[in-house]
Amino acid sequence: MIKVGVNGYGTIGKRVADAVRAQPDMKLVGVAKTRPNYEAEAAVRKGYPLYAAIPDKSDAFRQAGIDLAGEVDDLVLQSDVVVDCTPSGIGEKNRELYDRYDTRALFQGGEDADVVDASFNARANYDNARPDDVRFVRVVSCNTTGLSRLMAPLQETFGVEKARVTLIRRGGDPADATRGPINDILPDPVTVPSHHGPDVNTIFPDLDIDTVGVKVPATLMHLHSVNVTLESEPTTEEVRELLSDESRLFLVPGVAGIDGTGQLKEFAMDTGRPRGDLWENCIWGESISMEGDDLYLFQSIHQESDVIPENVDAIRAVMDAADQRESMERTDDNLGVGL
Amino acid sequence: MIKVGVNGYGTIGKRVADAVRAQPDMKLVGVAKTRPNYEAEAAVRKGYPLYAAIPDKSDAFRQAGIDLAGEVDDLVLQSDVVVDCTPSGIGEKNRELYDRYDTRALFQGGEDADVVDASFNARANYDNARPDDVRFVRVVSCNTTGLSRLMAPLQETFGVEKARVTLIRRGGDPADATRGPINDILPDPVTVPSHHGPDVNTIFPDLDIDTVGVKVPATLMHLHSVNVTLESEPTTEEVRELLSDESRLFLVPGVAGIDGTGQLKEFAMDTGRPRGDLWENCIWGESISMEGDDLYLFQSIHQESDVIPENVDAIRAVMDAADQRESMERTDDNLGVGL
Amino acid sequence: MIKVGVNGYGTIGKRVADAVRAQPDMKLVGVAKTRPNYEAEAAVRKGYPLYAAIPDKSDAFRQAGIDLAGEVDDLVLQSDVVVDCTPSGIGEKNRELYDRYDTRALFQGGEDADVVDASFNARANYDNARPDDVRFVRVVSCNTTGLSRLMAPLQETFGVEKARVTLIRRGGDPADATRGPINDILPDPVTVPSHHGPDVNTIFPDLDIDTVGVKVPATLMHLHSVNVTLESEPTTEEVRELLSDESRLFLVPGVAGIDGTGQLKEFAMDTGRPRGDLWENCIWGESISMEGDDLYLFQSIHQESDVIPENVDAIRAVMDAADQRESMERTDDNLGVGL
Amino acid sequence: MIKVGVNGYGTIGKRVADAVRAQPDMKLVGVAKTRPNYEAEAAVRKGYPLYAAIPDKSDAFRQAGIDLAGEVDDLVLQSDVVVDCTPSGIGEKNRELYDRYDTRALFQGGEDADVVDASFNARANYDNARPDDVRFVRVVSCNTTGLSRLMAPLQETFGVEKARVTLIRRGGDPADATRGPINDILPDPVTVPSHHGPDVNTIFPDLDIDTVGVKVPATLMHLHSVNVTLESEPTTEEVRELLSDESRLFLVPGVAGIDGTGQLKEFAMDTGRPRGDLWENCIWGESISMEGDDLYLFQSIHQESDVIPENVDAIRAVMDAADQRESMERTDDNLGVGL
Ligand SMILES: NC(=O)c1ccc[n+]([C@@H]2O[C@H](COP(=O)([O-])OP(=O)(O)OC[C@H]3O[C@@H](n4cnc5c(N)ncnc54)[C@H](O)[C@@H]3O)[C@@H](O)[C@H]2O)c1
Ligand SMILES: NC(=O)c1ccc[n+]([C@@H]2O[C@H](COP(=O)([O-])OP(=O)(O)OC[C@H]3O[C@@H](n4cnc5c(N)ncnc54)[C@H](O)[C@@H]3O)[C@@H](O)[C@H]2O)c1
Ligand SMILES: NC(=O)c1ccc[n+]([C@@H]2O[C@H](COP(=O)([O-])OP(=O)(O)OC[C@H]3O[C@@H](n4cnc5c(N)ncnc54)[C@H](O)[C@@H]3O)[C@@H](O)[C@H]2O)c1
Ligand SMILES: NC(=O)c1ccc[n+]([C@@H]2O[C@H](COP(=O)([O-])OP(=O)(O)OC[C@H]3O[C@@H](n4cnc5c(N)ncnc54)[C@H](O)[C@@H]3O)[C@@H](O)[C@H]2O)c1
Repeated sequence: MIKVGVNGYGTIGKRVADAVRAQPDMKLVGVAKTRPNYEAEAAVRKGYPLYAAIPDKSDAFRQAGIDLAGEVDDLVLQSDVVVDCTPSGIGEKNRELYDRYDTRALFQGGEDADVVDASFNARANYDNARPDDVRFVRVVSCNTTGLSRLMAPLQETFGVEKARVTLIRRGGDPADATRGPINDILPDPVTVPSHHGPDVNTIFPDLDIDTVGVKVPATLMHLHSVNVTLESEPTTEEVRELLSDESRLFLVPGVAGIDGTGQLKEFAMDTGRPRGDLWENCIWGESISMEGDDLYLFQSIHQESDVIPENVDAIRAVMDAADQRESMERTDDNLGVGL
Repeated sequence: MIKVGVNGYGTIGKRVADAVRAQPDMKLVGVAKTRPNYEAEAAVRKGYPLYAAIPDKSDAFRQAGIDLAGEVDDLVLQSDVVVDCTPSGIGEKNRELYDRYDTRALFQGGEDADVVDASFNARANYDNARPDDVRFVRVVSCNTTGLSRLMAPLQETFGVEKARVTLIRRGGDPADATRGPINDILPDPVTVPSHHGPDVNTIFPDLDIDTVGVKVPATLMHLHSVNVTLESEPTTEEVRELLSDESRLFLVPGVAGIDGTGQLKEFAMDTGRPRGDLWENCIWGESISMEGDDLYLFQSIHQESDVIPENVDAIRAVMDAADQRESMERTDDNLGVGL
Repeated sequence: MIKVGVNGYGTIGKRVADAVRAQPDMKLVGVAKTRPNYEAEAAVRKGYPLYAAIPDKSDAFRQAGIDLAGEVDDLVLQSDVVVDCTPSGIGEKNRELYDRYDTRALFQGGEDADVVDASFNARANYDNARPDDVRFVRVVSCNTTGLSRLMAPLQETFGVEKARVTLIRRGGDPADATRGPINDILPDPVTVPSHHGPDVNTIFPDLDIDTVGVKVPATLMHLHSVNVTLESEPTTEEVRELLSDESRLFLVPGVAGIDGTGQLKEFAMDTGRPRGDLWENCIWGESISMEGDDLYLFQSIHQESDVIPENVDAIRAVMDAADQRESMERTDDNLGVGL
Repeated sequence: MIKVGVNGYGTIGKRVADAVRAQPDMKLVGVAKTRPNYEAEAAVRKGYPLYAAIPDKSDAFRQAGIDLAGEVDDLVLQSDVVVDCTPSGIGEKNRELYDRYDTRALFQGGEDADVVDASFNARANYDNARPDDVRFVRVVSCNTTGLSRLMAPLQETFGVEKARVTLIRRGGDPADATRGPINDILPDPVTVPSHHGPDVNTIFPDLDIDTVGVKVPATLMHLHSVNVTLESEPTTEEVRELLSDESRLFLVPGVAGIDGTGQLKEFAMDTGRPRGDLWENCIWGESISMEGDDLYLFQSIHQESDVIPENVDAIRAVMDAADQRESMERTDDNLGVGL
C-alpha cells in the first residue's frame, strides 16, 4: 500500500486524488488546500481528509465549518509520496518541505525541469523514475504528455526525422472566470519555436522537434496540428493501426459524427466518464494522413486530465513498485482508460 | 412498473433515459434515434434498446454495426408513456403516432402549448396532468421551468404583484459546433416583451410577468436577472429562507467562492453529478435582495438538465401513479436532487 | 481658443484627443503617454505632441526613436484644461499635479465621485460644471452616460417613478488580449443592486433606480435591458417620438435589418465613422414598448466612445465657454453625431 | 476610365466599391444589392447608384424609400468590368449574365477555379489575367491571397522545397450574428490536407504545399502558422529583409507592443484606416525564424480586406490597362497600402 498525499487541490489535484483512490495498491492520506471554497466542500463530501496548506489560514476553514485533519506538514510526514499540484512555481518552493520529511514527491508540468531528478512520461521513459536516487519527478505538462505519447510509437516503429507542431491552446480552463482572450487569436509565444519543443526533449533528448504556440478563446481542450517527417514511408493505414494499438491514444472514428471538442466531451460524458474527462490523446481518425514521408494529423488534448494516468504511474515508478507494463495496465484498468 | 419509451435521443432525451432508469417504479423500454452517431454508440454501451426513429434509415445503423431492437412504432406500442424529445416542431408531427397506439406522451418546451392537453411544472401545477383525459402533456422549457419553480413559492407566500425578468440566454449547448454568436450581445427577440412571459402564463394563468430575451456567446447556462414586485414586504432574510426550503432551488452560498457558471458546473462535477448536471435552479445567494417591495435576484439555469426531474414527475402525473409530494420526493431521492 | 491637454492616451484618451482636434474653438496642446507602443506611434503619425507621462520612462521613447515634446508637467502647465484619461484610480493621484499648476481637469468614470467638484452629463446637468469654483469635473462612466441620456427626457416629459436596469457588460475592450471570461455569464457584481444605480444618482440625485450587473464574453458594446415605471402612461409611439428627438440617442430602425452589436458597428463603419465609433446610445427601435405604465427597451452602449462628446462639452462647461445648447450643438456638428 | 460595376454588396463588395472609387483611372458605375438593409442605406449615403440585384425584389427598395438606378442588367450593360461579390456559388450562376452583355467579370475566392479563365494574385501572376481571351478572372480567397504574397518572394529568392501551413480560421466575420462555434476548436476540414493547398496551386502550379484547417471562436482575422523548408539556408535576418521589402507585407514590429489581432486592428484604426482594414499580410516580426533550412513564422490575415487591392489590380489586368508594377503601385498609393 503506497501512502499518497496530494498538495494543492485544484484542477489537477482533485483528479489525482480521485485517481489515487481508485488504485487498490494506494491509499490517499489526504489533500492539502489553501482555502475553504467549494472545492474544499466537495472534498469533504468525498471523505478526503483535509489539511491546511498554509497553516496561517487554518482558521478560515474552521470559520467555514470545515474540520481539518491537520496541517500540510502532517500530510507530508505520513505520505510515502506527495503529489504536488500547486500552481506553477510554488512546487519549486515546496521541494524543501518534502526534503525535510524525506518524502518523495511528484511535480507537475508548470515546474521547471531542473527542479527535479527526472521528467516523466509513462509510455516513453517510465524507467527513468525508478532508480532509488530519483526522489523528485516531474510529470510533464498536458501538451508534452500528449506529444510524448504520440512520438514514442512513431519513433520506435518508423523513426522520426523531424516533427513540427502547432499547438492551438485553450485560453483558460472551464472554471476560470477571468482569463481571456475573448475574441482574439494570439501568437503565444510570438517568438518561434516555442518552449514546448525543448520540453518534449526532456523526455526524448534527441528528437528533432519544432513547436509553435497559439492561444484562442476556448476552454475545453487544446488542439495539436501535427506534422512528422518520418524516416520510413508507411501507409496511412499502417500509421493508423500503430496508433490504434496504444491504450492512451483514442482514434476518434469518422462514423461517430463527432465534429469538435464540444462533442468529444459530450461523448465522454455520455459514456459516464467522471467530469467528462478524456485521459487519452484524442486523435482525429480521419485526419491521419501520409503525404510522401510526411505524416499529418490533428489531436485534441484534454488539458485537465491527460496527465492523470501519468501521475498514477509516476507514483509507482518513483516507489519502484511496479514495472512499466504492469503499472500502465493497472492504471488503465482501475480508471477505465480506453474509449 | 410504468413502461417508458424515449423518442429523440439528444441533449434532453439521453438525460430523460438515464433518469427513468434510475426510478424503481419505471422501466425504460428503449430509445428511438435517427442516426447511428456517437450518442447511439453510448446508448448501446449503456444497454439501452435502440429503435430506429426513421424506419427508412434503419440501414445506416446496420452499416455502423449497431443492432436495433425495432422501429419507433414498436417502441410506442410497448410503452405506457413516450417522452418525445425530438427537436422543436417535430413533436407536434409525432402526436398522431402516439394517438395511433393509444399511448400517452410528454412533449418538451419546444412544442406549442396548444399541441397538448396540459402544460406542466411539478412544483406549480402537478395535478393538471392527472385527470384521465389528459393524454398529452408538455413539460415547459428550461427557462419557464426555472421561472415557475421560483414564482410558485413567492406567489403562495408573499403574493406577486408583477414580475420583470431579463433572460440572458446561452447561444447554444456545449456540443453545438455551429451556433453563434461568437462576439455579440443580441436582443433576441428584439421585440419586447418576449414570448417567455406568455409561456409562464401556461403554468400561472394570472401572473403579471414581462420578460425580455438576450443571447450571448456562452454555452453553459442561462442567467435570469429577476425583479419581482411582491404584494407584501418580507425581509431579504425571509425570502432567502423561503427559497432555501425548496428542494429544486439551490442557493449558491457566498462562502463557496463560486464566481460564475463555469465554477457552478465545476462544483457539480466535483460532487459527482453525472454530466455535471444541475437539476436545480441555481440562485445566487448573495444576490437575493429586497428594496422596498421589490425583490431582486440572479438565477442560473442549466438548460440541459433542469427539466429532467420535471419529466420524471410528469410521467407519474400523466399515469396518475402518485401524488405531487410523493412523486417529487421519489424523483429527488432517486436522482440525488439537492446540492 | 481653449488649450487642452490629454493625460493618458488609451481607449478614451486617443478619442478625446481626436475629438478636441475637431473643435475649432479648442487647441490640442498634446498628449501624455507612459510607453512608446503602437499607440504612441499612431499619435506621432497624427502629429500630436507627445509628453512623457512618467518622466523616469522618457528614455524608452528615445530608444524607440520617438521625439518627446516634454514631460507631463509641461503639458499641464500649458493647458487650460487637462482631460485625465488614465486608468481607474490613477486620476485621483494626478489631482495634486493639476492643482500644482492651477489647471482645471476632467476625470473619467473610473474615478470616485468625491474626487471631483461635480459629476457631469451634458444632457442632464451641464450647468453644474460651470461655476467658477468647479475646477475638477468627472465625466461619468459609459454606462452612467448612457442611462443619463435616456433618463433625462423621460424624467422631464413623463416623470420616472422607478427605473430598473440590467446591465449586460462586455468583458473587455476589443484590444484587450487578456481579459475574460471566455465562456461564462457572470453575475458581476453578485450583490444586488450594483453600484451603477448610485452612480446615476450623482447626476440625478432623486431618481429611484435599481441596477444589476452581468458580464459576458463579448467586446463590442454593453447592452442595457431597461424597465422604467413612468409617472404617466404615454403610448409606445409617444415615447419613441420623444427619444428620436434627442441628438445623442439613435433609434435603430427595424427596417435596417440590424441584428446585434456586430452589425451596429458595421453600419457605423459603413457610414465612415472613425474607428466605427457610436457616440450615441443605440436604442433598439422595435424594443421600445409600453405595458401599462411600464416602459421597456434595449439600448446598446459603445463603451469606448459614448463619453467622447460629453468630454468635449465638459471642457466648455468647466471653462464656462458656452451654454449647454450651444456646446452640444457645436460638439455634435464638429464630430458628426447623429446617424 | 474603366467603368466598374459591383454585383453583391456585402463584406467584400462594399470594400471593392470604396476602393474603386479611390482610383482616378476608374469609375464606379454602381452597386447591385438584393435587399434594402443598413448596407443599402450606407451605400445611398455615399452616393453609390444602387441597382436591384434581383428584379423581383425591386419593390422592397421602393417601400424602404430607397431610389434605384435600375436593375442589375443595366449595371452589367454599362460596365466594362463587373466585380462579382456575391456569396459562394452564386457567382458561377451569374456568369451567364455577364456573358450576355459581353462584360468582363471578376469573381471571388468562394467560386471554383474552373468557373474562370484565370485565378489571380497581383504579386504572383498578374500577367495571367492580361491576355484578351481571359474574360473571367477569380481573385483567390483571403487565405490563398495571404499565402501567395508570402510564397512569391520566398520562391523567387530562396526556392521553396516544401511548405506546411496550419490555417487557424476565424469562425465568422464580425457582423455575422449567427455563425459559431462559441467554445470549440474544430478541425475543419477534419481531413488532411485541406483544400487550401490545391487552391494555392492555382497560383503556383508546382509549389509543394500541404495545408490543414482549424476553426475557432474569433471574428477579427485568420492566423497562419507557416513552415517553409527552403532550398537554400538564408539567415533569419535575410528573410526578414526580403519580406519587409514587399509592399503588401507588414512586419509587425516587436517594439510596437502589439499582442494579437485585437491590437492589430486597433492600430489600423488609430492610423485612420477605413473600417480598420488591414490590406497587408500582418507577419509577426518576432516570429520569423530560421531553424536549419526551415523557416517558421506567423501571419495574421484580415479576411475582409486583404483581397481588396488584388481586386483593383485584377480590374486593370483583365482590361490590360496597366502592367503589374504600375498597377500595384497605383493601387497602393491610391488606397494607402503600407503601414
Ligand atoms: N490546468 C491544466 O490544464 C494543467 C494541465 C497540466 C498540468 N498543469 C500543471 O499542474 C499544476 C497545477 O495546475 P492547476 O491547473 O491544477 O492549478 P489550479 O489553480 O487549478 O490549482 C492549484 C491549487 O493549488 C492551491 N495552492 C496555491 N498555493 C498553494 C500552496 N502554497 N500550497 C498548496 N496549495 C496551493 C490553489 O488554491 C489551488 O487549489 C501546475 O504546475 C500546472 O502547470 C495544469
Ligand atoms: N437543449 C436545451 O437546452 C433544451 C432545454 C429544454 C427543452 N428543450 C426542448 O427539448 C426538445 C429537444 O431538444 P434537444 O436540445 O434535446 O435537441 P437535440 O437536437 O439535442 O436532440 C434531438 C434529437 O432528436 C432526434 N430527432 C430528430 N428528428 C427526429 C424524429 N423525427 N424522430 C425522432 N428523433 C428525431 C435528433 O437526431 C436528436 O438526437 C426540444 O423541444 C427543445 O426545445 C431543449
Ligand atoms: N474603456 C472603456 O470602456 C471606458 C469607458 C468609459 C470610461 N472609461 C474610463 O476612462 C478611464 C481610462 O480608461 P481606458 O479604457 O481609456 O484605459 P486604457 O487602459 O485604455 O488607457 C489608459 C492609458 O493611461 C496610461 N497610463 C497609465 N498610467 C498612467 C499615468 N500614471 N499617467 C498617464 N497615463 C497613464 C496607460 O498607459 C494607457 O495608455 C478610466 O477611468 C475608465 O474607467 C473607460
Ligand atoms: N468574408 C470574407 O472573409 C471573404 C474573404 C475573401 C473572399 N470572400 C468571398 O467573397 C465572396 C463574397 O463574400 P462576402 O463575405 O462578401 O459575402 P456577404 O454575404 O458579406 O455578401 C454577399 C452579398 O451578396 C448579396 N447577394 C446574395 N445573392 C445575390 C445575388 N444573386 N445577386 C447579387 N447579390 C447577391 C448578399 O445580399 C450580400 O450583400 C464569396 O465568394 C466569398 O467566398 C469572402
